[in-house]
Amino acid sequence: MDNFTFYNPTKVEFGAGKEQQIGQHLAEHGIKKVLLCYGSERIKRDGLFAVVSQSMATHGIALIECGGIVSNPVLSKVREAIALARGNQVDAVLSVGGGSVLDSAKAIAAGTMYAGDVWDLFIGKARIEAALPVFDILTLAATGSEMNSGAVVTNEDTKEKFAIHSVLSFPTVSIINPALMQTVSRDYLVYSAADIIAHAIEGYFTASVQPRFHSRMVEAIVGTVIETTETLLNDPADYAARAEFAWASTQALNGLIYAGTAGFSYPNHMIEHALSALFNVPHGAGLSVVMPSWMRWYHSRNPAQFERFAKTVFGVDGALQGIAALEAWFDKIGTPTRLSQLGIHAADLPAIIDNVLGNARYFGIADIYTRDVVTPILNNAL
Amino acid sequence: MDNFTFYNPTKVEFGAGKEQQIGQHLAEHGIKKVLLCYGSERIKRDGLFAVVSQSMATHGIALIECGGIVSNPVLSKVREAIALARGNQVDAVLSVGGGSVLDSAKAIAAGTMYAGDVWDLFIGKARIEAALPVFDILTLAATGSEMNSGAVVTNEDTKEKFAIHSVLSFPTVSIINPALMQTVSRDYLVYSAADIIAHAIEGYFTASVQPRFHSRMVEAIVGTVIETTETLLNDPADYAARAEFAWASTQALNGLIYAGTAGFSYPNHMIEHALSALFNVPHGAGLSVVMPSWMRWYHSRNPAQFERFAKTVFGVDGALQGIAALEAWFDKIGTPTRLSQLGIHAADLPAIIDNVLGNARYFGIADIYTRDVVTPILNNAL
Repeated sequence: MDNFTFYNPTKVEFGAGKEQQIGQHLAEHGIKKVLLCYGSERIKRDGLFAVVSQSMATHGIALIECGGIVSNPVLSKVREAIALARGNQVDAVLSVGGGSVLDSAKAIAAGTMYAGDVWDLFIGKARIEAALPVFDILTLAATGSEMNSGAVVTNEDTKEKFAIHSVLSFPTVSIINPALMQTVSRDYLVYSAADIIAHAIEGYFTASVQPRFHSRMVEAIVGTVIETTETLLNDPADYAARAEFAWASTQALNGLIYAGTAGFSYPNHMIEHALSALFNVPHGAGLSVVMPSWMRWYHSRNPAQFERFAKTVFGVDGALQGIAALEAWFDKIGTPTRLSQLGIHAADLPAIIDNVLGNARYFGIADIYTRDVVTPILNNAL
Repeated sequence: MDNFTFYNPTKVEFGAGKEQQIGQHLAEHGIKKVLLCYGSERIKRDGLFAVVSQSMATHGIALIECGGIVSNPVLSKVREAIALARGNQVDAVLSVGGGSVLDSAKAIAAGTMYAGDVWDLFIGKARIEAALPVFDILTLAATGSEMNSGAVVTNEDTKEKFAIHSVLSFPTVSIINPALMQTVSRDYLVYSAADIIAHAIEGYFTASVQPRFHSRMVEAIVGTVIETTETLLNDPADYAARAEFAWASTQALNGLIYAGTAGFSYPNHMIEHALSALFNVPHGAGLSVVMPSWMRWYHSRNPAQFERFAKTVFGVDGALQGIAALEAWFDKIGTPTRLSQLGIHAADLPAIIDNVLGNARYFGIADIYTRDVVTPILNNAL
């Protein structure tokens, strides 16, 4: 096992009704005024906004609204929100939504406390030295952002989908109520399943140091996602399955399954970020397209682990059989496995490949993911 | 899944050489003088004490020595150490040792800041309202104390082995260097294996709410302990196995596998605490005796889970076959499975049973664990 530091100070409040306590949590941390970030107006229609604002009012906490954050969240919105946060002198950012809103909230929280332009923090021009505290009420389980220190935002001008990471960016309190996820659409449920699986398997397959204990944990997560997704497709109101799905999602990217591994990379995310940056496809849908094709290219570099995956997750023998089983499962649940299903065709590949090669430099794996490697992976996914 | 709060602020520094940074960690937290708790003088002979004191000296941190903490740590020593801590006005407690030293350190840290007698905190007469920060360098993986908020101490006068739990008792920084565990005796390695398995399975078998995801995580831990124990018995110097064993031990009792479960209890610990309180047997050795006998009494209350355990952990069919496989594995590695191996005989049972019944009240399960239940469990373990 590689040497590591594990530190995850986020307090998770998990369960039915927990969103009603948001005012109390904010008050316990001395918060007086928050920037409340959200996506569509749906949280107003379904009553969540009312619950949140009521809880805050009870504790005398003022809120400044910042709605309209979109999936694959964009830099222009983050900049706009930072101006709002500064103008109103908020002392915390509250995200009510999924990973896109929460990632934006983390960027806003760091950007508000940084004198320059927030994109500097994404491109390594400056480090995060301070950030407003971030709180969140999660309404979609997929990104794991609720218990980690990362955030991904797309710069629409440069078409770069980049990330920040800082110990200052862990949410202070994350509220995860699976019941709030019950109305997630069928499409976003299966995209989320693909996203969680991608988080779990990137290290599992690519790490040069991958303890078996960690592989077992990954298999526990992937097995849970497969099982609970099928349950939820049959019965979206199954709270127990929704809860396991959500908690597995959190565990997939809170550091647990990566602590002590080494030499891993995120090639599927590197490739997918080009798809969502250029074509605004749902991140999970992009991942379910990329994964099988990437796996078919990569498996011979780590055959024992691919055979292990095939056996433990799908009960089949052989690396290729395991990949086929995963692809078949994606097809079965209805998340795309072909670029054409995303409306992306051969003519689009040159631009995508150029973007991927930019990401490869950013992800630190440009030596492996050259044009000659990326081209067939994408071609085979057409 | 049951509603839960998950909050674990301990920073874990895991890996070879990490103990050399202890001075830096203490300094970062503004510590000037620590009570350095340890067990035998072995840490002086093997050089660990020198490394620790050197690192502290480099950062200008003074230390007050408090050696002689024994396995199944005792209240009298904790009281003595509290007097030492107060007399010297230390501002932190540093544990260098295994779970017994660390549990004592937690009790000392809380007791120093409590005006009354520290045992009040164990029997619920008072709550922990403040505690000195605790740091530790772990030399034995078993108790999981390095990443949780609990501590178990024995009152020699009353023969009660009771616990404290407080959010103030999480270690601030825990240093886990598997290389420091290489010299753990063969006996303590296998006792530790039994202890970790006990931590993992108490909830697994007894919880009324036990999500499958959590069962999978437990099985990952138990599978890892079984595999790495066998590796270490063949080669105590296998660092990779030592590391997986240690990290599985931490995960077994850091809250992860219990968050969201409900209605569980710790019957094996409840029974074992009587053995170690009265006969000072190694805690893990007592647990490997209690577990098979308890499991044979309990399995019909949760047959599906026992069948699952048999299948996933040992690849056998049937609850009783799984229990037999665990017992056979304990026999194989050489941790006791009979009270007689601990020097405990039929004549000793009445006193043990009385002590267990006291523990049952303390553990909140006296309604289930009556004399009529406890007696055959212990009789069958003779």
